[in-house]
Parts: sequence; structure tokens; C-alpha cells
Amino acid sequence: MKVRQALMLGLVLVAEGSALAQAQFRKPEDAVRYRKSVMAVMQEHLGSVGAMANGRQPFNAKAAADHAQVLAVLAPLQFAGFTKDTENLSNKVKPELWMALDKAKSAADKMNVETQNLLAASKTGNLDAVKKAFGEVAGSCKSCHDAYRE
Amino acid sequence: MKVRQALMLGLVLVAEGSALAQAQFRKPEDAVRYRKSVMAVMQEHLGSVGAMANGRQPFNAKAAADHAQVLAVLAPLQFAGFTKDTENLSNKVKPELWMALDKAKSAADKMNVETQNLLAASKTGNLDAVKKAFGEVAGSCKSCHDAYRE
Repeated sequence: MKVRQALMLGLVLVAEGSALAQAQFRKPEDAVRYRKSVMAVMQEHLGSVGAMANGRQPFNAKAAADHAQVLAVLAPLQFAGFTKDTENLSNKVKPELWMALDKAKSAADKMNVETQNLLAASKTGNLDAVKKAFGEVAGSCKSCHDAYRE
Repeated sequence: MKVRQALMLGLVLVAEGSALAQAQFRKPEDAVRYRKSVMAVMQEHLGSVGAMANGRQPFNAKAAADHAQVLAVLAPLQFAGFTKDTENLSNKVKPELWMALDKAKSAADKMNVETQNLLAASKTGNLDAVKKAFGEVAGSCKSCHDAYRE
């Protein structure tokens, strides 16, 4: 129960922390470009952590933490780009996203917490902890892409 | 002299802090996409601070600090995407950039410090300080775009 409460508190804090930094888009095309850009940057940094987690690169805790810091800052931003007025622009977004935005938002919030966990794990310098936390973030990427991306 | 020393120390710290988070690109096209993405995200958040600095939106210190935090994390990343192997892909980059990469890097490092200053100014809650710091960041954007972007 305590774990669940802590997780919920974490979700609230992450959500509050990011709510004010949400961009205001002048036009729908800007929102699409924004969300694609946020994810493109995240992809590179998550890939760098993944290379260490999967043994393709030597593990460097400081580098992992730096990448995780970027991910923890960007993760809370990505959902803001899925504005309703982009529905007709979004040829790679499945209709399931627009039909259940709240559900997708919950998945995004979960990923925010996972990137915080990855940052915390990186700071411990424990590779096994980083591997586990990386797996959770990467799993969230895949889960949303499978559910919502054509 | 002390101010200059502090500025130089700031530059070193920012450069060190970001060096390890540099992405490793699999192919030149990834580097181009990365740098464009970093700048696209920055543009939105700088625009949000600018709207407050210019009085188009009410000033909210917490929101300004959240936007500035995103900028302070992203600014040190943008230069990494200007890898030498992208020179022939980069139809919007002037030759001046490739001829004097060190000079462009110094300008990018200066902007890193300015985004840190914007973050510090936002945290004080003083709108005049935010206006001044915003002007310096925006001036650095413009200065590099004028010098290096077609």
C-alpha cells in the first residue's frame, strides 16, 4: 500500500511539476513538430543508456545519469503535443489515442515516474538497477507505440 | 576580473556537465534530426518565456522557471548535432560554421550560461531580471542564426 501511495504521490508531483512548463502552440502543426522533436531527442538519449544497459558500451554512471536527466526533463513534455486539433494532421497516430486520451495520458504519466526512477538508479552507480529501470522506460515507449502509433 | 573568472568557470562547468550526455549518432541523418529537434523544443519554451517577458502573457515565475529549466537542459545538447559528417547534408547551414566550428562552439557555450542565468532569474520571481536574461538568450539565438543559418 505504501509503495502504491508513493507511486501515486510521485505521479502527482511529476504532473504538477510539468503542468506549468507546457508549451502553448500557435498552430496544430507546431504541436506535431514539438511532440516529434521531444521524442526524437529522447530516442537518442534512451539509446545511449540502452547501449550501456545492454553491454554495447562500457557503463559510465555519470554519463547514464546525464542522459537520464535529459529523459526526466523531456518525458513530461511529450504528451502536451497531442492536442485535439492535431487529430486530422496525425497520419501516424491510431484513432485509439483520440478515443481514450485519458488512458494515454496515464501511460505518459507512468513513464514520467519511470524516467525519474532511471535517474535515481543511474545516480546509485549500480548497473543492475540501471538495467531494470531502463527496461521499464523502454517498455513504456514500446507499449505506447504499439497501442497508438500506426 | 572576478566576473570574468566566474563566467569562465561557469562555461567550464556547463561544458563538463553536458559533455557526458552527448548523444552518439548512428548515422549523419540522426545528428541532423537531433539538432533540429533540440532547437524546435527550445523554440517553444523560449517563446513561452518571451510571451511573459514581452507582456503578451501574464508573468508566472513558476512557469517561467519550468520553461527555463527545459532550456537549461537542452541548450548544452544542440551543438552535438553539428557533426562534421553532416556538412554535406546541411543545406541550411552556412559554410562559415564548418570553417570555424570552435567559434560556433564558444557561442553555444555562452548560450548555455545564459539559459542558466534565465533559470536563476526566473527563480527570483523578478520580471525585470527575467526580461534581461530572456533578452540575452534570444540575442544568442539570433546571433548564431544570423551567422550560420542560410
